[in-house]
Amino acid sequence: MTAEQAGAAQRSATQGSAGQAYEPAMRRALELAARGPATGANPQVGCVLLDATGMIVAEGWHRGAGSAHAEVDALSKSDGAVGLTAVVTLEPCNHTGRTGPCSDALIAAGIARVVYAVSDPGLRSAGGAEQLRSAGVEVVSGVLTPDATEFQRAWLVSTALGRPFVTVKWASTLDGRAAAADRSSQWITGTASRQRVHEQRAASDAILVGTGTVLADDPSLTARGDGGELMDDQPLPIVIGERHIPGDARLWDHPRGVLETGSRNLAEILEWLFGQGIRRAFVEGGPTLSSAFVAAGLVDEYLIYLAPKLLGGNQLAIGDIGVTTIGEARELRITSVEHLGNDILLSARPITVARPITEAGH
Amino acid sequence: MTAEQAGAAQRSATQGSAGQAYEPAMRRALELAARGPATGANPQVGCVLLDATGMIVAEGWHRGAGSAHAEVDALSKSDGAVGLTAVVTLEPCNHTGRTGPCSDALIAAGIARVVYAVSDPGLRSAGGAEQLRSAGVEVVSGVLTPDATEFQRAWLVSTALGRPFVTVKWASTLDGRAAAADRSSQWITGTASRQRVHEQRAASDAILVGTGTVLADDPSLTARGDGGELMDDQPLPIVIGERHIPGDARLWDHPRGVLETGSRNLAEILEWLFGQGIRRAFVEGGPTLSSAFVAAGLVDEYLIYLAPKLLGGNQLAIGDIGVTTIGEARELRITSVEHLGNDILLSARPITVARPITEAGH
Ligand SMILES: NC(=O)c1ccc[n+]([C@@H]2O[C@H](COP(=O)([O-])OP(=O)(O)OC[C@H]3O[C@@H](n4cnc5c(N)ncnc54)[C@H](OP(=O)(O)O)[C@@H]3O)[C@@H](O)[C@H]2O)c1
Ligand SMILES: NC(=O)c1ccc[n+]([C@@H]2O[C@H](COP(=O)([O-])OP(=O)(O)OC[C@H]3O[C@@H](n4cnc5c(N)ncnc54)[C@H](OP(=O)(O)O)[C@@H]3O)[C@@H](O)[C@H]2O)c1
Repeated sequence: MTAEQAGAAQRSATQGSAGQAYEPAMRRALELAARGPATGANPQVGCVLLDATGMIVAEGWHRGAGSAHAEVDALSKSDGAVGLTAVVTLEPCNHTGRTGPCSDALIAAGIARVVYAVSDPGLRSAGGAEQLRSAGVEVVSGVLTPDATEFQRAWLVSTALGRPFVTVKWASTLDGRAAAADRSSQWITGTASRQRVHEQRAASDAILVGTGTVLADDPSLTARGDGGELMDDQPLPIVIGERHIPGDARLWDHPRGVLETGSRNLAEILEWLFGQGIRRAFVEGGPTLSSAFVAAGLVDEYLIYLAPKLLGGNQLAIGDIGVTTIGEARELRITSVEHLGNDILLSARPITVARPITEAGH
Repeated sequence: MTAEQAGAAQRSATQGSAGQAYEPAMRRALELAARGPATGANPQVGCVLLDATGMIVAEGWHRGAGSAHAEVDALSKSDGAVGLTAVVTLEPCNHTGRTGPCSDALIAAGIARVVYAVSDPGLRSAGGAEQLRSAGVEVVSGVLTPDATEFQRAWLVSTALGRPFVTVKWASTLDGRAAAADRSSQWITGTASRQRVHEQRAASDAILVGTGTVLADDPSLTARGDGGELMDDQPLPIVIGERHIPGDARLWDHPRGVLETGSRNLAEILEWLFGQGIRRAFVEGGPTLSSAFVAAGLVDEYLIYLAPKLLGGNQLAIGDIGVTTIGEARELRITSVEHLGNDILLSARPITVARPITEAGH
């Protein structure tokens, strides 16, 4: 499922003209949601409570696994909620995890109306809207659905598919080379691009690399600031492939440790990582591993750094992806083009529907 | 010489604060210049005549080989030019070709001051400024030099180097492939990109293709509008390579005919084309020919169409360019990024100095 499709499905849902009045409040709820952590197994959710005149009387957001959900956080800030409207970015959950179901909390507080942007795609957590309705709470859905869907695309896709959201990043010259013929590649891209990669690492739960890259480059795979200092968030480095990495590899010094998979089975590895709470996987190559992810249809987002250079030769950023004729080309949609120093960063995503992990071929 | 370097050299020339006052008039002269034909051996030049108060009293531009130069055109529109200021985009020529030297015409008309943007790089035509000065005309140079240099970059580079300005265009996927493994490539790019290519053809004097492309694709190489109709301007198709093209090739029906070079010597071919009045060569591939141009350092402008697709496989848009290690990479500067439908068009140019054809290796 792509975020667009999720959005379209949601738009066709309940929103009447009534919904539009809640857009400013929903925008505020999205701002609050963004204050929560972008990594980890839980979604970023924001909530505001409105009185009968539409004034915001309380705000809340989710601060990550184990802490209060956004709705409960907002309720805790309000002096009684009877008759109020709750505007929340995600359908209130109907699931008892480390905290109780939000739908029950809203009902118990006497909330009169719940407005939400995106349905909960979780198998266990969905059903909150129905629960609310059957308790006599008015439910309005479909408000700012496209914005909210895009905002939490990684979490939604991951939850719907039962595997981490997969970002594949590579850096190449304008002719698609990742290195020169002698394999030298330092540096293809400039400092602005390399700094951006560190930020993207920090916004992920795990960095995935092939054994080939570890053996060739001995990378540290830490997320570092532009002074070389370690960032607060360090994703777990995961090595994909059957070979072992050397005992003196730099990866052993990684603050999070390192995980060797001993496997090439990408679907299996992703499913297992999902079970470990990993929702955002950042694939940093090399070419063999990235191509395998493309070939398997397991890429949700492409980050392609293009350096204004030409190299020729046979060190390609992407190798065989199982395509033999033009009609089989992997079709993407470019979602943004950014200038980073002299480089260009293209963001793109597949135009085709990703399948839940259990159906994905391999 | 790059346009930047030409510009820098010129900026360091005469312009004092006096020059700034002429910028609006120079902008107008550039607008007029653009009315002339962008193809052919002659530059696009515009000229305005100002009275003592700075009012424009006459305008002129060059309409192509054999017609009046911009200065003479402007003089012909004015009722006497004694004491006027001529603002002209290019240094007035000092050369008797099909028309007499403009410097003489300006002197004879009694022009008091000549303001120009870019020095004439032509061996035979330069020297106009000196000629004017020695006749007592005040000369101001360096007004809007960067704009004017960029505007006539192709002509300036061509004139300075003694070969056509070479644009190499290719279309590839984001992973640098020009075709799928089975060589199918219709269509990598979308209609907006393909239409732009036709416009770029029409703005060139010649289209260059390798024998391989002719034998593989049997292209017509005409410049066509989006209804498929022939455009007014049709560049001459030129086939590079030792092989002959088949007697029934579509190219033989081209409105301009076709030129077979029977040679792979790019420098020699370019020099010869320059002698034939060709100033803008549009290289349309295939990969072998484009790579040979890159390897020989004979590219002034790159137009890279990137389609949002991945193909993998071994059909690369650019093959070997003689680079073996990262330090030898051909360094470019991206000058523009345009969205064309779902595709992206990157324009780029070498950051290194092109050498006159006689010094260029090959
Ligand atoms: N420009 C860039 O963005 C970039 C980024 C990273 C690396 N690189 C360069 O890439 C080079 C290494 O290239 P590489 O392609 O050998 O590295 P790689 O993709 O990191 O590793 C390839 C290895 O991964 C294992 N593997 C894991 N899953 C696989 C699967 N599904 N299918 C096939 N193999 C799988 C295989 O080894 P096993 O036998 O162990 O299973 C395979 O040989 C280095 O020179 C590095 O500098 C460039
Ligand atoms: N995606 C795109 O933008 C694009 C554009 C055009 C073509 N194509 C595709 O490219 C394929 C053809 O590829 P190609 O590389 O064989 O075509 P090519 O570059 O058009 O032709 C290659 C031939 O050009 C001759 N040649 C001329 N000057 C040369 C030089 N300096 N060095 C080496 N060879 C020189 C050689 O043949 P002689 O033996 O005759 O000298 C050589 O075999 C076709 O399938 C076509 O569809 C793609």
